[in-house]
Amino acid sequence: PDREELSKAAAKTQMEFEYDGPSMKTEVPGPRSKELTKQLGEIQNVGAINFFCNYEESRGNYLVDVDGNRMLDVYTQISSIPIGYNHPSLIKVMSNPNNMSAFVNRPALGIMPPENFPEKLAESLLSVAPSGMSRVQTMACGSCSNENAYKAMFIWYRNKERGHNIPSDEDVSSCMINQSPGCPDFSILSFMGGFHGRTMGCLATTHSKAIHKLDVPSFDWPIAPFPKLKYPLEEFTRENAQEEARCLEEVEDLIVQWRQKGRPVAGIVIEPIQAEGGDNHATPDFFKKLRNIAHKHGSAFHVDEVQTGGGATGKFWAHEHWGMDDPADIVSFSKKMLTGGFYHKDELQAYRIFNTWMGDPSKNLFLAEVLNVIRRENLLEEVTRSGKTLLQGLYQLQDQYPNLLSSARGQGTFCAIDIRDDATRNSILLKARDKGVLLGGCGDRSIRFRPALVFKEYHVHMFLNVFSDVLAEHN
Amino acid sequence: PDREELSKAAAKTQMEFEYDGPSMKTEVPGPRSKELTKQLGEIQNVGAINFFCNYEESRGNYLVDVDGNRMLDVYTQISSIPIGYNHPSLIKVMSNPNNMSAFVNRPALGIMPPENFPEKLAESLLSVAPSGMSRVQTMACGSCSNENAYKAMFIWYRNKERGHNIPSDEDVSSCMINQSPGCPDFSILSFMGGFHGRTMGCLATTHSKAIHKLDVPSFDWPIAPFPKLKYPLEEFTRENAQEEARCLEEVEDLIVQWRQKGRPVAGIVIEPIQAEGGDNHATPDFFKKLRNIAHKHGSAFHVDEVQTGGGATGKFWAHEHWGMDDPADIVSFSKKMLTGGFYHKDELQAYRIFNTWMGDPSKNLFLAEVLNVIRRENLLEEVTRSGKTLLQGLYQLQDQYPNLLSSARGQGTFCAIDIRDDATRNSILLKARDKGVLLGGCGDRSIRFRPALVFKEYHVHMFLNVFSDVLAEHN
Repeated sequence: PDREELSKAAAKTQMEFEYDGPSMKTEVPGPRSKELTKQLGEIQNVGAINFFCNYEESRGNYLVDVDGNRMLDVYTQISSIPIGYNHPSLIKVMSNPNNMSAFVNRPALGIMPPENFPEKLAESLLSVAPSGMSRVQTMACGSCSNENAYKAMFIWYRNKERGHNIPSDEDVSSCMINQSPGCPDFSILSFMGGFHGRTMGCLATTHSKAIHKLDVPSFDWPIAPFPKLKYPLEEFTRENAQEEARCLEEVEDLIVQWRQKGRPVAGIVIEPIQAEGGDNHATPDFFKKLRNIAHKHGSAFHVDEVQTGGGATGKFWAHEHWGMDDPADIVSFSKKMLTGGFYHKDELQAYRIFNTWMGDPSKNLFLAEVLNVIRRENLLEEVTRSGKTLLQGLYQLQDQYPNLLSSARGQGTFCAIDIRDDATRNSILLKARDKGVLLGGCGDRSIRFRPALVFKEYHVHMFLNVFSDVLAEHN
Repeated sequence: PDREELSKAAAKTQMEFEYDGPSMKTEVPGPRSKELTKQLGEIQNVGAINFFCNYEESRGNYLVDVDGNRMLDVYTQISSIPIGYNHPSLIKVMSNPNNMSAFVNRPALGIMPPENFPEKLAESLLSVAPSGMSRVQTMACGSCSNENAYKAMFIWYRNKERGHNIPSDEDVSSCMINQSPGCPDFSILSFMGGFHGRTMGCLATTHSKAIHKLDVPSFDWPIAPFPKLKYPLEEFTRENAQEEARCLEEVEDLIVQWRQKGRPVAGIVIEPIQAEGGDNHATPDFFKKLRNIAHKHGSAFHVDEVQTGGGATGKFWAHEHWGMDDPADIVSFSKKMLTGGFYHKDELQAYRIFNTWMGDPSKNLFLAEVLNVIRRENLLEEVTRSGKTLLQGLYQLQDQYPNLLSSARGQGTFCAIDIRDDATRNSILLKARDKGVLLGGCGDRSIRFRPALVFKEYHVHMFLNVFSDVLAEHN
């Protein structure tokens, strides 16, 4: 059988495992979801709850809710389900008795790891290590990953400044009371529109929505403009290059200013595509030059792939699209990787990065299997194919509804489109859900598409049909 | 059968499940551990690795390493294994097919929780909610729990200051660039010797060891002295009361000073027993008065039970020993609770506490079962009994070795003792391990005892025998 036929056969198998389309029984949230939301409201805040799910019945790209509504999921738990719901390979991980103990006995990984830990790290995280990186530290979630990556950059920077890694007596005594030089006035340079998490260090580098930051004390750290580009990027190369140059100039200015202020920039953190902030892209040229600026000024370069990593852009890491041998000093991840953590260059190794759990080895078991599935089912090629079809479809709809849609953009299936205004965007999200397609927003008025890696071309067509109907209602 | 006999029968069952004592085959770390440490060293820092474990073969109170050494575990993965290794009830949770989907499909709990989520929260976390608290938020780890608890206190304090919860335009715009008033200059008051985690917000309240804090930027927040008491507490009531009064006075002074500095104290955070910092105790009277000071000055009161919570002190929460109806505004937890999170009063509810995962429902399933086991096997009574025997034994050894040991102290099995000096402490820890007893240090020269809740009186005697031999070698 040729490639085409194999692919059809694979699609057929998946279709048999999956449902054959959305199926809506009630409004969403339905009566059972509403009842449960009320129950949960007695225990915690439910302001953000959409509906309750029946995960047992969910399969592949379809999420089933507690009222029996079955939706094509193009949001996947805020971009965190890598290969769809209840993938048979993941079920197998669970039913393998050899894996039992990893779930039942959560170790303190930093002091007493299980026997198979180095092997499982090699099989899972190291097998997809970014170029130039052979070291990785797991963490429990995305925020902890970034917090600890920042700490690794601060420690590295301070050792560089000292010329060695032995703290002075003054360092030791002053740090105990939160004072310099033990707690130095270093900063992390971040970008307007960026999102890096919500713990206090991360939050000082997050600038996507006020609601994330409001009322929480922060650090006086430099914030650079992220390029505001015109899409499709290839049609506006000259203007976009100018905009990127402007932002890079500002980055250098800020690094110099903050050094003069006595708050030197120990590290620069950036997403390859600003996700929460509205799916803002920049060109490989921008990232190459930014990486060089970091080098030039002696700042570490941290690429946050918490949302972009794990294959959705058609490459395993979004930064691979830059085509660099030495793309970063630190790459952090979470979400689709099922475990948080960060890769780093040898120089950024720090034995003071530590906590009780340091991740969760049961998540590494799942990740190893996810990576097997990605390879076995050629999911990165699949994503590239589905992504092309998706973006083409968005271009067509944008031509058809120029007053409603603009700036279709994407890499792989990691796509987005802008809607006329916030109110229309939110109405479209709800109407699409009523028709059985689950989408998410980002930025002020964008819709982001975040399907699992098993989202095939026929799912794209199914989505485009529903989306087209919804748009017609809003024109 | 009377209570005594039932208890003996239960002990027998456990003994059959467990091993009958330590059994050492090699030095620790043995050859296989050394080989694996070398392997892991290629991937990440191994400076803190003690040895590698065979978790499959570990049972109850016994941890088995990869060289076949079987040790009585009085440290339990930095105090995070509640009912011993491979407890049959936890294995059952894993093999129940109804639970499969919670492991395989990790949801974004804040937007699309599973159907059984409210029920499982009620069964698990709410069934042991601290007095006056009916609301709980799960988080992935201890640091995230405290970070988000601090945020909840900041948001609550700011709303109180505003008189309502609607931010001004200036709040909204200034917070995006990390500036006041949107990111207000609020502080959290913490105590010297306290440990609350290692992310940047938590770290600003952690003051146990320089190594945790060195080279990481921090906040200018007030740090109060924690009482340095003499043990046994009941023998030094007058001096201890004076010392506590001195510290409380300092707390009030700091609150006033920081208000004058324009950095008002939004919250006070404290451990019921400072654990990492050296197992420092204070009396219920101290905590009652501190709670009143918080009230008086309008600061929230956050009790960090990450290490003390979950039963080891003989009560489910260590703060229950204070005998207060309204002990706190926030109680955070992790470790033995298997999931991180925090309980809070209704007023501290904040819909802006959010992240992708918001905990992990598969951990709630295990926790619900751990709580069943605690109730079924009367483990809190067991802990009280074992703890009494342990502390009596430590008192005896301290009488026997007055130059070596001092300040034996504890609640339940959450006990500690001071050793002559740091070097002797470390030597004792290693020698005990060689004889098959696993212990941990804390503070400058203390040994902390952190067995699981299934540590029975006969385990205490086994431990005391080994400990006594080791001490004899150091006298």
